Amino acid sequence: MLRVLVLIISALALYVPPAIAQDNARARSALAQDYDAIVADIITITEIPAPPFGEERRAAHFADAFRSQGLKQVTTDPVGNVIGVYPDRDGEMDGPFLVVSAHLDTVFPEETDVTVKRDGDRLLAPGIGDDSLGLAALLAWHRAMVAGNVQIDRPILFVGTVGEEGLGDLRGVRYLMTKGAYAGRIAGFISVDGSHPERLVHAAVGSKRYEIVFNGPGGHSYGAFGIVNPMAAMAEAVRQLYAIDLPADPRATYSASVVSGGRSVNTIPDRIALQVDMRSEDSEALDSLESRFLTIVDNAVANENEARSTSAGQISAEKNRIGDRPAGTTPVEHPLVQSAGTILTEAGYTVMLAASSTDSNIAMSMGIPAITIGTGGGGGRAHALDEYLNVERSSFMTGLDAGLQIVIAAAGVAL
Amino acid sequence: MLRVLVLIISALALYVPPAIAQDNARARSALAQDYDAIVADIITITEIPAPPFGEERRAAHFADAFRSQGLKQVTTDPVGNVIGVYPDRDGEMDGPFLVVSAHLDTVFPEETDVTVKRDGDRLLAPGIGDDSLGLAALLAWHRAMVAGNVQIDRPILFVGTVGEEGLGDLRGVRYLMTKGAYAGRIAGFISVDGSHPERLVHAAVGSKRYEIVFNGPGGHSYGAFGIVNPMAAMAEAVRQLYAIDLPADPRATYSASVVSGGRSVNTIPDRIALQVDMRSEDSEALDSLESRFLTIVDNAVANENEARSTSAGQISAEKNRIGDRPAGTTPVEHPLVQSAGTILTEAGYTVMLAASSTDSNIAMSMGIPAITIGTGGGGGRAHALDEYLNVERSSFMTGLDAGLQIVIAAAGVAL
Repeated sequence: MLRVLVLIISALALYVPPAIAQDNARARSALAQDYDAIVADIITITEIPAPPFGEERRAAHFADAFRSQGLKQVTTDPVGNVIGVYPDRDGEMDGPFLVVSAHLDTVFPEETDVTVKRDGDRLLAPGIGDDSLGLAALLAWHRAMVAGNVQIDRPILFVGTVGEEGLGDLRGVRYLMTKGAYAGRIAGFISVDGSHPERLVHAAVGSKRYEIVFNGPGGHSYGAFGIVNPMAAMAEAVRQLYAIDLPADPRATYSASVVSGGRSVNTIPDRIALQVDMRSEDSEALDSLESRFLTIVDNAVANENEARSTSAGQISAEKNRIGDRPAGTTPVEHPLVQSAGTILTEAGYTVMLAASSTDSNIAMSMGIPAITIGTGGGGGRAHALDEYLNVERSSFMTGLDAGLQIVIAAAGVAL
Repeated sequence: MLRVLVLIISALALYVPPAIAQDNARARSALAQDYDAIVADIITITEIPAPPFGEERRAAHFADAFRSQGLKQVTTDPVGNVIGVYPDRDGEMDGPFLVVSAHLDTVFPEETDVTVKRDGDRLLAPGIGDDSLGLAALLAWHRAMVAGNVQIDRPILFVGTVGEEGLGDLRGVRYLMTKGAYAGRIAGFISVDGSHPERLVHAAVGSKRYEIVFNGPGGHSYGAFGIVNPMAAMAEAVRQLYAIDLPADPRATYSASVVSGGRSVNTIPDRIALQVDMRSEDSEALDSLESRFLTIVDNAVANENEARSTSAGQISAEKNRIGDRPAGTTPVEHPLVQSAGTILTEAGYTVMLAASSTDSNIAMSMGIPAITIGTGGGGGRAHALDEYLNVERSSFMTGLDAGLQIVIAAAGVAL
């Protein structure tokens, strides 16, 4: 899934005029002094719960933080994304814009203890790296660009998105890119997600997610023995899915992930719900897998109605698509990928190109150049209660500095 | 499952001497006047919640009710069964005893609304027929026998049992028959369960119930694709179970009834739990089915560990037996069955012999003659929130009167 980046443009291609270079240097210098504020922001953001479909409080804080940094154009759009525009000019700007985003939501439910703990150079809390770090980085980069009075060719939309995780199904970024006030005027997209700067995501893993509800008549386990059972249909569907042998390239995957149903041990169930995840970097491979799976479900239902009595009723299946994230790619040769790769390489990272499912999926699927980058100095256990972030100053600030340079460069490169 | 009873002994076989017959007639006459008190008892009992493993309050009320009817020998045994002895003599009786029991527990959780509603001749409430009716019948029969000063050959233990339903797994009657103070001194057993007097249970459907927990390493649906999945092992086990073709005689059944597991749609699950119910009237058929099922589970686990990568860990299965009710039969020819059948037939019922899983299972499996009878005048929707009971006086009292005669006769017939 990861491969080392081959740079095809040289560092010289990122040439900037001396005056602008001086602004950028001032911004980087301001950022370098900002460590304590960045760490404080990460802690504050993390400790505001932002469960799936419950990002409002964190969003309000994020908007206030941008405003308190002097940004006048800060809006919250109808789905809950927070959008701040740089540079801070009066009046509407035409764009085209570069989006620099991080996601507001976490995978953790409301009641999760999100108190940040410290253990040496580690901060520990659910969601701290995914994606409090990204949100704090956006605030820090904005402060630094203001301090340096950085001039850019292309205005930036700093965006805190809702609904990146799981069943959020990228609803925030989907709205931003296709329906919001800036839709149609976005020329490039950077998602800041996670704590590993060496990982440069240029390809979007698409996914199709289903909840299949197998319904049947149900009945007494003894008295009604012999009638169709939605459990048996579900089992046959899972078995046939797991008999599919997929080629290694283009990579595609499936997972029968969540199942539930049944009333009591002595009752033939009337409803079994199964959640299945299918993914690929390749749209065609994904569509083909989806179609095979849906046929399997139909076959499993037909088999069960054939195998046992339907005197009390038949098995049927509802096929609810609960996720649909498009696949896409920004070519490795694209200046957005190459400039980011060059900056990271010069900062000392061995850049690994990656495919992943992030907010960049939507832009990539629309043919808009997009990358997802990490920042900071590493971490781990994302989506787990013991998630952590390394905040050892030197490596942490190297990641932040590289991110700032990538953003400034992206606001200047040809898109 | 139901078949019409063929009576092989005549009504004459139930001959009782005139003096005793007079006592019995007085008892029946007292019962016939007791309609209002019986209905009141049913309502009072129903409105005291008695969820699985939470029968204490209803048990305390039931014990108090027997005491208030003048019974001095009322005890609550260590598992919670309430036991009252008739006739009410001073000092310990040797027995052997006839048990006449009804179960205290319902299938409904504590928070269920158990308020009794009336709709014409129907009383509606969860648990009202299963088994408030039985408990109220025990109280009524005791009052009638006291009123008639009924003389019997064999003392009666009137018992309210705990744990008849579901995962209670007959724990109350199991203790009563095998470990309690009267164990070893019980010669016959009548369970009063449900509202259909025409249904005479003389055979015990045995059951074996399992919760199989399939464990695996789990992982990211995309990143860890290719590793073993406990969902696939569960599916294969269900499929193989449902491929078993069982003979019609002796009847045996299986049901994959409840399933749950998985953390999120984008996570390969690490745990899937499956509940399976297997039943038969025939012990050997049941044991054989159990053994086949457990082999299937082992095979499904082995298949999955063979089919996919175990680099992150293997699939394993915990096999937890969550229910074990023995099978057994009281021969149709036995005087207990024949005398009950004769009384019911004379009362106008077309008696249907039935096999079921009731408190009588334990006695039958021990070779102790046992039957399960209904009483009252019908009802329906047992185990559902809209359970109801017909209390139209004439049919209701016909059922109560038949039950009283069955009990008195059983305390006299050769066991």
